[in-house]
Amino acid sequence: MNTDDIQDQLESLTISPINVKLKRLPRLSDYIPDLKSYTNPLQHNAFYHHSDHDGFYISHSDIILRQIVFDFSGNFPSSAPHLAYHHAGPRKEILFDPKRVRAAIVTCGGLCPGLNTVIRELVIGLWELYGVREIFGIKAVVTIYVNNMTRLNPKQVYIIGGDGTLRGAVQIFNEIQRRKLNVAVTGIPKTVDNDVGIIDRSFGFQTAVEMAQQAISAAHVEAESAPNGIGLVKLMGRNTGHITLDATLSSCDVDCCLIPEHDFYLEGKGGLFEFLDLRLKENGHAVVVVAEGAGQDIIPRPDSQTQKTDDSGNPVFLDIGVWLKTELKKWWEREHKGELFTIKYIDPTYMIRAVTANATDNLYCTLLAHSAIHGIMAGYTGFVTGPINGNYAYIPMDEVAHAKSPVNTNDHKWAWVRSVTAQPDFLRT
Amino acid sequence: MNTDDIQDQLESLTISPINVKLKRLPRLSDYIPDLKSYTNPLQHNAFYHHSDHDGFYISHSDIILRQIVFDFSGNFPSSAPHLAYHHAGPRKEILFDPKRVRAAIVTCGGLCPGLNTVIRELVIGLWELYGVREIFGIKAVVTIYVNNMTRLNPKQVYIIGGDGTLRGAVQIFNEIQRRKLNVAVTGIPKTVDNDVGIIDRSFGFQTAVEMAQQAISAAHVEAESAPNGIGLVKLMGRNTGHITLDATLSSCDVDCCLIPEHDFYLEGKGGLFEFLDLRLKENGHAVVVVAEGAGQDIIPRPDSQTQKTDDSGNPVFLDIGVWLKTELKKWWEREHKGELFTIKYIDPTYMIRAVTANATDNLYCTLLAHSAIHGIMAGYTGFVTGPINGNYAYIPMDEVAHAKSPVNTNDHKWAWVRSVTAQPDFLRT
Amino acid sequence: MNTDDIQDQLESLTISPINVKLKRLPRLSDYIPDLKSYTNPLQHNAFYHHSDHDGFYISHSDIILRQIVFDFSGNFPSSAPHLAYHHAGPRKEILFDPKRVRAAIVTCGGLCPGLNTVIRELVIGLWELYGVREIFGIKAVVTIYVNNMTRLNPKQVYIIGGDGTLRGAVQIFNEIQRRKLNVAVTGIPKTVDNDVGIIDRSFGFQTAVEMAQQAISAAHVEAESAPNGIGLVKLMGRNTGHITLDATLSSCDVDCCLIPEHDFYLEGKGGLFEFLDLRLKENGHAVVVVAEGAGQDIIPRPDSQTQKTDDSGNPVFLDIGVWLKTELKKWWEREHKGELFTIKYIDPTYMIRAVTANATDNLYCTLLAHSAIHGIMAGYTGFVTGPINGNYAYIPMDEVAHAKSPVNTNDHKWAWVRSVTAQPDFLRT
Amino acid sequence: MNTDDIQDQLESLTISPINVKLKRLPRLSDYIPDLKSYTNPLQHNAFYHHSDHDGFYISHSDIILRQIVFDFSGNFPSSAPHLAYHHAGPRKEILFDPKRVRAAIVTCGGLCPGLNTVIRELVIGLWELYGVREIFGIKAVVTIYVNNMTRLNPKQVYIIGGDGTLRGAVQIFNEIQRRKLNVAVTGIPKTVDNDVGIIDRSFGFQTAVEMAQQAISAAHVEAESAPNGIGLVKLMGRNTGHITLDATLSSCDVDCCLIPEHDFYLEGKGGLFEFLDLRLKENGHAVVVVAEGAGQDIIPRPDSQTQKTDDSGNPVFLDIGVWLKTELKKWWEREHKGELFTIKYIDPTYMIRAVTANATDNLYCTLLAHSAIHGIMAGYTGFVTGPINGNYAYIPMDEVAHAKSPVNTNDHKWAWVRSVTAQPDFLRT
Repeated sequence: MNTDDIQDQLESLTISPINVKLKRLPRLSDYIPDLKSYTNPLQHNAFYHHSDHDGFYISHSDIILRQIVFDFSGNFPSSAPHLAYHHAGPRKEILFDPKRVRAAIVTCGGLCPGLNTVIRELVIGLWELYGVREIFGIKAVVTIYVNNMTRLNPKQVYIIGGDGTLRGAVQIFNEIQRRKLNVAVTGIPKTVDNDVGIIDRSFGFQTAVEMAQQAISAAHVEAESAPNGIGLVKLMGRNTGHITLDATLSSCDVDCCLIPEHDFYLEGKGGLFEFLDLRLKENGHAVVVVAEGAGQDIIPRPDSQTQKTDDSGNPVFLDIGVWLKTELKKWWEREHKGELFTIKYIDPTYMIRAVTANATDNLYCTLLAHSAIHGIMAGYTGFVTGPINGNYAYIPMDEVAHAKSPVNTNDHKWAWVRSVTAQPDFLRT
Repeated sequence: MNTDDIQDQLESLTISPINVKLKRLPRLSDYIPDLKSYTNPLQHNAFYHHSDHDGFYISHSDIILRQIVFDFSGNFPSSAPHLAYHHAGPRKEILFDPKRVRAAIVTCGGLCPGLNTVIRELVIGLWELYGVREIFGIKAVVTIYVNNMTRLNPKQVYIIGGDGTLRGAVQIFNEIQRRKLNVAVTGIPKTVDNDVGIIDRSFGFQTAVEMAQQAISAAHVEAESAPNGIGLVKLMGRNTGHITLDATLSSCDVDCCLIPEHDFYLEGKGGLFEFLDLRLKENGHAVVVVAEGAGQDIIPRPDSQTQKTDDSGNPVFLDIGVWLKTELKKWWEREHKGELFTIKYIDPTYMIRAVTANATDNLYCTLLAHSAIHGIMAGYTGFVTGPINGNYAYIPMDEVAHAKSPVNTNDHKWAWVRSVTAQPDFLRT
Repeated sequence: MNTDDIQDQLESLTISPINVKLKRLPRLSDYIPDLKSYTNPLQHNAFYHHSDHDGFYISHSDIILRQIVFDFSGNFPSSAPHLAYHHAGPRKEILFDPKRVRAAIVTCGGLCPGLNTVIRELVIGLWELYGVREIFGIKAVVTIYVNNMTRLNPKQVYIIGGDGTLRGAVQIFNEIQRRKLNVAVTGIPKTVDNDVGIIDRSFGFQTAVEMAQQAISAAHVEAESAPNGIGLVKLMGRNTGHITLDATLSSCDVDCCLIPEHDFYLEGKGGLFEFLDLRLKENGHAVVVVAEGAGQDIIPRPDSQTQKTDDSGNPVFLDIGVWLKTELKKWWEREHKGELFTIKYIDPTYMIRAVTANATDNLYCTLLAHSAIHGIMAGYTGFVTGPINGNYAYIPMDEVAHAKSPVNTNDHKWAWVRSVTAQPDFLRT
Repeated sequence: MNTDDIQDQLESLTISPINVKLKRLPRLSDYIPDLKSYTNPLQHNAFYHHSDHDGFYISHSDIILRQIVFDFSGNFPSSAPHLAYHHAGPRKEILFDPKRVRAAIVTCGGLCPGLNTVIRELVIGLWELYGVREIFGIKAVVTIYVNNMTRLNPKQVYIIGGDGTLRGAVQIFNEIQRRKLNVAVTGIPKTVDNDVGIIDRSFGFQTAVEMAQQAISAAHVEAESAPNGIGLVKLMGRNTGHITLDATLSSCDVDCCLIPEHDFYLEGKGGLFEFLDLRLKENGHAVVVVAEGAGQDIIPRPDSQTQKTDDSGNPVFLDIGVWLKTELKKWWEREHKGELFTIKYIDPTYMIRAVTANATDNLYCTLLAHSAIHGIMAGYTGFVTGPINGNYAYIPMDEVAHAKSPVNTNDHKWAWVRSVTAQPDFLRT
């Protein structure tokens, strides 16, 4: 195929300039004058030699576009700025003398597949690549404060935790900036639910989907083996249905996928009961997966719990799985009295969080940890590292701390679920 | 955080227009006059209702940018055109009457994790979403020809196979176009090695990496349990080192990763022996992974094989794993006579290809199959579907058939391996 | 080592004769006069040749001892008869002409790992080894009757099901004998709980233990990751604690193992709370596993349920797992108000039954199915096949149908659990 | 069913006395006069209380019968003595003061699934059950001598290793006895091949079979996917075919199983080629599994290797897998020139040894370790612990060190393989 052929296949689009805006990242040198810089010690490895053009070092001018899907018919290019982020990776010049670095690795909250890999790779990367010799770990059950932190006198702080932790890390970072301390801070979002925005996904998520698929597969086998068998699986996800959604698309055995972002109802035309009735008639069995945050507003809440909130001030979650199981039984008893019926209910939550990360997540965790180290060594601070469209980027921490990542049900991802399951849209037309 | 705050964080970049070029996709209506169009039957589902703005249908003007990492310092925007592709997904208007469609699913060549999912989802998608009732399978051992094909009189042809198969599919497509037949053709690349260009990755690849990681883990445990133990793992990849590379980054137990795209040598300064000597001294054991296509030009080829080629005219591959094992033994015997030494060699090839796809690959295969169906139904032909930067696109088939996907050792992906393993660059400086 | 040495090591025991009693097995020839016999078609295989002494065929006089552990100090040999059973395996002479056999494979009730292997091997064994060409399957949801059965006119009936099914099979067999029908019946016990007597274990049990161990491991990881963390796992076993017991011994992470055969209590000296208090103080976490049938008489039963029985007349089971979780929370709140505490509760039931059998169970299922076929072909009827002390035996069906297999807490198996966990004996001394 | 009914089913056998001989176990008190005895500290646990009849303690008079399958027709009871062994488990009285015990755990040789469990449980059992506080580990690469041993001054020695190690342990034990040292020695056989006699199986074996089954399954999938496809799997087992045999019975996909204990040949009537020819014609594919020690005398041995022996004096093993693969290819080329043919060869050896033990092996390893401790504490020495007919026994160490465990091809276990695969008997009739 020669160049002309290729040209023939191109359809020219006349477009206006794309107005790209780069998300600026704070650096220690922004507020600490005369900060000394050093050559990256990777440069001194006896076994390899970097040329300026071998792609090993990433420069400050390497950026990643966030939006990559456009509709050129009308709203492309839109007047809204197109955001870009710094590309993660080792910088040739760093702002720390590794020999004098004290690094703190702070972890908060519960388990997540891959957490051990992140911690191990932070330690290995700091120790072996940069020669850092003072690394200590802090297991923070609830909160960390700047004062605690400064007492330990770290130069680099790696904070691994959920959204609450990230918001705390932003405050720590702000205070450090205010005091003009020579301390760099990075956050590593830990949420198996994948409910953090901007980045492609959070670590542990793929492993959770793998385990969720196994639970769905078990539910399917159970459902198939009984007359009018229903397999019901409750999956993690208080705010978002990502695990439920991906597990649905992975397993192909799901008849209906219920998530917090999309309301549903049980009774009446277009409701869950009518739909399941049809599926049981057609196939003899059905599988329903439900995210733990789904349907919270249709479960009758006892008066005593109406205003009940947990320690963080969030309303107490009601158990959608157990409630749904009960309602399905009542429905069948009402509508199909005397006919055989079986529900098998699976809640694999605590078998998911404790498993070892799969290869995909391990690779992710390794690059995440090393990206974080390279970023901090380069003097960036107040940032989060993570993949954007498959490439690792540095993102301002406060932006990540406040970004949500709901399933966009007006987008194509949810459409896949609808087209694969052919489930109701619950729109009460 | 109010809008002003966000604006403060943006760094404006004044850039020239990006010259986006869309890869045009052939459609049946290009060469068949007066082709009737139909409403997508998804529109008639009793349980859901599409509005024009719910993102369910994808339009012809939805495109995906291919290049998303830029260096804005000098070469951004470059004068080279920035390529874009059509977004995959269901179209509201289709060019087939599903009731009269005969669909052929053609598979060529060996096993690949996920192959069964692709086939099953093609059948389910055609049958359940579109109501197609004539679907047949063809298992092509070697080659398929247009005449064979036309005798079976399919209207839609889904061809699943390796690069040879894809090139054959292009010829079939060209001939169909020449004869102006009302037959749409799509290709689905099947290569566990991930050696196909443009798309993010091929199906089965993630599962192969998972299994490869297990083999590496076993090699590591074996190496650790013996004094001066070396674990040597040969992984799939004749042309590319993708599996080897990703498994290396997933496992963190690898000391040296050898791939076809990067030459290496054994003896002398900066060579493999010197490096392993050092690692054995430091750690007492080492793990080497090697892609089957690596080092083909340093294995002494007996005269009889110098010109030997296989049935496809490619030079016969020599077994890098067995050769390396032998050379390492000889080296140790020569340099460390009398010292204990153990090599454990693992070749997991045929245990990798036969496993069930993991959740990540299953999800991929489902979207792949459904994307292919939606594209064909919309009248696109001569195309391949696959993810570009995480979004499913339609790509001209001849472009994919000729695109290679080597590991770019001047790019950042290889740099990760070098920084994680700290292995030699084998540059003989 | 010569023979004298060996003799030196032997300590002679003068013992009275062991009074061995063989459990007689019914045969069709017992009540059908002049039944023709045939040479086993295995004899005609072109590829192998049996001599009379190669151990291939088993004879009627090959028997297996049931009791093999003795205390020679006083009660050995006891006056009680020592039972023996016929050894399972192919007989040289059979009582069916395979070409004229109609075989029915009847399955009742729920899932069990290995069920598919048993069915497949029954079909393969009948078809390939004996040349039977009429094999049909019956999925009995509830009950089967002789009349149903005879209408289908089978000559051989293989009934796979739980204890209720086996008792039904005994009735069918008795009726067949009464009518002197030329129909042989065998039962294959299906109970993942391993609650059937005489045989070493039931199929699926080892796989269930494997999965249970995974659940315990997850609970342990969860418990370890939280201050004062308790992992609570409920395992299958309404009548017996075999799964719970074996999973406890397999996992080594269990602090307390609660089974139906051994009462326990929560409050007071030597109770569960006191014990857990101590373990949390010593280790910071604890893991409790409980069989679903444990503690049924200490859970307060609402009046409405006092007399409630299920369809089979058994008292309704209360959920020990959920109750225990609640009680533990209340206890902590009462005794340790304000101190951090976490319980993670795992109920893996429906993820256990649906998994594929492991190698151990697959091997078992294969030998089970083939033993059953060989036995029936030899004309035995009204029997169950299963391993006794590791060797496959034929056992009268009514004996198995009425044998229970509780964990003997006055025996050494339970002692292992006590010595491994050092848990309380709950004896309220 | 009343007692009379049961009696009716019993067939009386008049038999002569069984002449049971108990294998005497050496005890420290045999040659050390006035050895003090102590109450087992298990007696002092705050949470449980042993009565004399609760089965917790095992006494010296508890024995296990080894032979349990008899042919009562002629050779029962035989005049040969029927062997019995001491039952393993905690003794109420022990011969060590745990507080003053120094325990050495010695491991020799390569990996085996479950090895870590054995070591961990030895440590936990000594520490937690008996309160031993001096425990140290020795990793012996090659040999250990009494002098080394005594220098470390242990009171209890737990030696884990293969048959060579066990024979060395016997020598150590003999020397200790000769010197009348107050040191107890126990051996724990470590051989994944299961080639040790008397005991039911060695630890790690079940896990190896599980992995072997996976390899066979992969070979089967590969073979099925190609025209005239042969899957060839080489499994561990130099002296015995146990892994190969059990994996064959577990997998049901095997057409031919080749083991060291049974000769086979390739060419001519009744040979492997003729058999595979038939299977390929019938089924289109075939699976062959071969133990690494099979067929050693039919592989042409180059002159240079005729007398070659390895370091231990054993003849060098030739690679049956690679040779068979080559011979099969030559045969097909010769007999079926031009017809498609594929062999996929899998050697999973080093992926088997490194995996984590499954639940069955973990349970085994736990009981093994605790049995060993209880035995040593009771003053037994020079013994091995292991299951006999499913019950843990103490066996004189020299007996185990010299017992082989070949597959008995004149017994029923091999008959199962023959009846399941219907493979040739290779008897050249």
